[in-house]
Amino acid sequence: MATDTLRVIPLGGVGEVGKNMTVFELGGEIVVVDAGLAFPRDEHLGVDLILPDFGYLADRRDRVRAVILTHAHEDHVGALPFLLREVRVPQVWGTKLTLGLAQSRLDEHGLLQAADLIEAKPEEGQVEIGPFRVEFVRMAHSVPDSIAVVLESPAGRALLTGDWKLDHTPVDGLRTDVGRLAELGTKGVDLLLGDSTNAERPGFTGSERLVGEAFEQIIPRCAGRVLVACFASNVHRMQQAIDVAVRTGRKVTVVGRSMRKNLNIARNLGYVQVPEDALIRPADIDDFRPSELLVLCTGSQGEPMSALTRIAYGDHPAVQVDRGDTVILSAKPVPGNELRVHDSINQLSKAGAEVLHQEIAPVHVSGHAYAEELRTMLGLVRPKAVMPVHGEFRMLAAHGRLAQQSGVPAGSIVLPENGSVVELSPTGVRIVDQIETGVTFVDGLGVGDVQAVALRDRRTLSEDGVLIVVATVGGSNGVFPTSRPEVIARGLSETGPLLDEMQSEAERVLRELVEQRITEVKLLQEHLHDAIAQLILDRTGRRPMILPVIVEV
Amino acid sequence: MATDTLRVIPLGGVGEVGKNMTVFELGGEIVVVDAGLAFPRDEHLGVDLILPDFGYLADRRDRVRAVILTHAHEDHVGALPFLLREVRVPQVWGTKLTLGLAQSRLDEHGLLQAADLIEAKPEEGQVEIGPFRVEFVRMAHSVPDSIAVVLESPAGRALLTGDWKLDHTPVDGLRTDVGRLAELGTKGVDLLLGDSTNAERPGFTGSERLVGEAFEQIIPRCAGRVLVACFASNVHRMQQAIDVAVRTGRKVTVVGRSMRKNLNIARNLGYVQVPEDALIRPADIDDFRPSELLVLCTGSQGEPMSALTRIAYGDHPAVQVDRGDTVILSAKPVPGNELRVHDSINQLSKAGAEVLHQEIAPVHVSGHAYAEELRTMLGLVRPKAVMPVHGEFRMLAAHGRLAQQSGVPAGSIVLPENGSVVELSPTGVRIVDQIETGVTFVDGLGVGDVQAVALRDRRTLSEDGVLIVVATVGGSNGVFPTSRPEVIARGLSETGPLLDEMQSEAERVLRELVEQRITEVKLLQEHLHDAIAQLILDRTGRRPMILPVIVEV
Repeated sequence: MATDTLRVIPLGGVGEVGKNMTVFELGGEIVVVDAGLAFPRDEHLGVDLILPDFGYLADRRDRVRAVILTHAHEDHVGALPFLLREVRVPQVWGTKLTLGLAQSRLDEHGLLQAADLIEAKPEEGQVEIGPFRVEFVRMAHSVPDSIAVVLESPAGRALLTGDWKLDHTPVDGLRTDVGRLAELGTKGVDLLLGDSTNAERPGFTGSERLVGEAFEQIIPRCAGRVLVACFASNVHRMQQAIDVAVRTGRKVTVVGRSMRKNLNIARNLGYVQVPEDALIRPADIDDFRPSELLVLCTGSQGEPMSALTRIAYGDHPAVQVDRGDTVILSAKPVPGNELRVHDSINQLSKAGAEVLHQEIAPVHVSGHAYAEELRTMLGLVRPKAVMPVHGEFRMLAAHGRLAQQSGVPAGSIVLPENGSVVELSPTGVRIVDQIETGVTFVDGLGVGDVQAVALRDRRTLSEDGVLIVVATVGGSNGVFPTSRPEVIARGLSETGPLLDEMQSEAERVLRELVEQRITEVKLLQEHLHDAIAQLILDRTGRRPMILPVIVEV
Repeated sequence: MATDTLRVIPLGGVGEVGKNMTVFELGGEIVVVDAGLAFPRDEHLGVDLILPDFGYLADRRDRVRAVILTHAHEDHVGALPFLLREVRVPQVWGTKLTLGLAQSRLDEHGLLQAADLIEAKPEEGQVEIGPFRVEFVRMAHSVPDSIAVVLESPAGRALLTGDWKLDHTPVDGLRTDVGRLAELGTKGVDLLLGDSTNAERPGFTGSERLVGEAFEQIIPRCAGRVLVACFASNVHRMQQAIDVAVRTGRKVTVVGRSMRKNLNIARNLGYVQVPEDALIRPADIDDFRPSELLVLCTGSQGEPMSALTRIAYGDHPAVQVDRGDTVILSAKPVPGNELRVHDSINQLSKAGAEVLHQEIAPVHVSGHAYAEELRTMLGLVRPKAVMPVHGEFRMLAAHGRLAQQSGVPAGSIVLPENGSVVELSPTGVRIVDQIETGVTFVDGLGVGDVQAVALRDRRTLSEDGVLIVVATVGGSNGVFPTSRPEVIARGLSETGPLLDEMQSEAERVLRELVEQRITEVKLLQEHLHDAIAQLILDRTGRRPMILPVIVEV
């Protein structure tokens, strides 16, 4: 392969929101930028996570030189442990916080030794990574320590923005480095790969600081408990909530495993400042009056087993919500999660809380650049060619229109699909091929039990088989099972008695849940899934895909 | 029962958005306000529509004097034919347009003679309906000819707002009658039942006229076809789009059965003015250049079989979309429909269209009053007691807070559930009982075939049975069935050979769809459902509930 021709192949993240992963290949050597995961839609029954198809990399396992992580969000780093299981990757590059958070994830998977973790330093110029001279540019986003990546080679200079916004007053003071972007523009950028998430939205997104200002307006006038739910990686938002809590004499407790973990790592690395006596353990909150408490929690997306959902349904061991309490949902529902989030809000309202969310109060800002910010980027960088990434097709198309308005010739704007092979050479940029890319499903048994995680694609599926559990429930006052659950097995050699046992187990679980007045379909599905999966693992040592289907009549 | 005690029982519409229906009972006589339906959530597999539980009325079938319809939206009138099948209702009251649209629906069900349709005239003072002196008050909303209902009796004066907003410049000039509301306030309103949909949202909703202004900005600069998708009942929005089309020399064609029907009725009744030569038939659009066309269409919610969805997937017999066309999605996704709407936008974008939707352009306004408008209502009416209706619990709670801020004592604010029995008497208002209310599922075979519609509740379910069809599909390039579909029958006496036949039919349908490259899970479900339902109807004359479960691997 010619060393003046760069191949760029998105394996995920275009035509969708999630599982971002882009291959950069030059002279047979590969550098991967990001290794993200996606969350399943409702029609993906029985699936916990979705990964990019690593097939292209697995087929070239000796040529992958490094993975570069732009920031610590799940849709950019979440697939890393799964990738490292399948493909040898000598180096993983990322900034200090990104590596800190990724490291703890690798640790859980027993993969700490799988790759060298090397700190990316935006201030220190170029480094050699595989066949590229690589430079990192600091970007503002909704998680600290985010970077853009510049890959230089004889084929030209490619700039991948990562997720970013033009926040001029970020909480940590570390702005998007517009100066450096302008310098790169002057040197000449041959291909810009830009975050397209908000390309359709006119104007600018607000500064993260606005959320802190909203907290300062809201929290001092709250009489009861204050709960703030946000993404577990949104360290600056937690910092802003903690600051207001400290100023208003509230103790802070953190519930939700991922949020506790992230906050600890961010504190240890110096990204969050919390006075030692400000934090209390969830078990100790009964020592304080509601008006002395601020609870930071996960569950801003209405996830079935998350802290806030359990609190909403009166099912959390430490935290409850009463009349007079205030819940701040500091996040926007990811498309598809709206009904779950609404369910949470309704339950919290029934418990007596006032719930403030982004539709009715300024308690959230987006982490992704809006159209005017994208125009600014295009103006700073003045790229010869543009390849919109990170977004559904409509967002990529809108980003393409912005590029054209900014003077990029239509023929130099590439709208790729996952698997598109885009070539950049001194003569320009074009799509030359399309490789086959699918998805890989991850099916986990309970939260945190990562050793038991099973990867599914069409191959492993035919090995482990599928079990479909169909339960019919109904009734107006609560839910009751109306007939025995049915179990359908496919590709499982053990059947007969085991099927009977599974049927009884499903019936038992369902009856128990109904006695506990647990009626949410999603919760019923989760519990059914875990009970059956555990039973089969115990009996056969195998991990078929379990698809719980709850039919309401 | 004492004639100075009014019982108010919401049978639907509180704690949810949809299927609004409220019973007013005095001295054993019943008047029902609205008879709406709801659309199923994704977890309601195999269900087309959801109705309120008519049980309370069926048990008192000789006491129902009338149904009053506040306006023509499905969530207020859609259950009327089903109600009239089960309960004798001598009179149905509504304004001219509401009755016109309801009438055509009753006609389809063969129920034109089932009740007297009597025109409600907001300008003409009180009428006697059952035990009440009833008055209608004109309200602005997103469908013309909407009304509030005032029910007067020895128990007091109850005012139910219906859906409304404070549009001072409605397209038809017929404003919410704030003068009459103020007069009623002066006379004394004992109980206000108010639309709570947007109680959480601060400020005011925009006038419907703003959407017309947006059309005037957008449409003249469009080079290709213009498609405008909105709710089929949004007659004023259609009028505004038609006006701009006429002014800019575009012919108008209407696709989508419900929209064509509604527009015809509204034209015949004088609610829409369209020059005769402005309209063309969909079949004739090839006689015109794209720049000479404006297409009004259904499908603003991404409904699987709707006009816009079929256009988006290149599957519409008359209308296509090409590069340079513009699609205006003039609606907001109902919660739960977001992903479908996003899918439509992406498909239309891939076809080359620019898609303008409410997140990025001012092409939609809400038809429901925001918080400041609700405060205005509370200020005009100065009710002694308030019962928020029409909304999820969080919305009812927010409406309750607004009422309290407006001076209504906390003890006179009732947050009901479906089935709550609220008593209004000269001594005040309180919840005295809770009746059992479930839901009824409607399972229809194909669009428009209303004779074949089956009603499901727990009783009919046990008679007709349930069929669950589980099909596993997978693959990266398109969908292919990975194994034979499975069929589970419950409560069906005919099994054996028929089950085999169903399995083969399911396999055949799936194979055919895959050959046509139809891969959308929702479309696969619809087609599977209809094919199997037809087969069973042919073979047995019965209509079990069909639940198609598509599993992607």
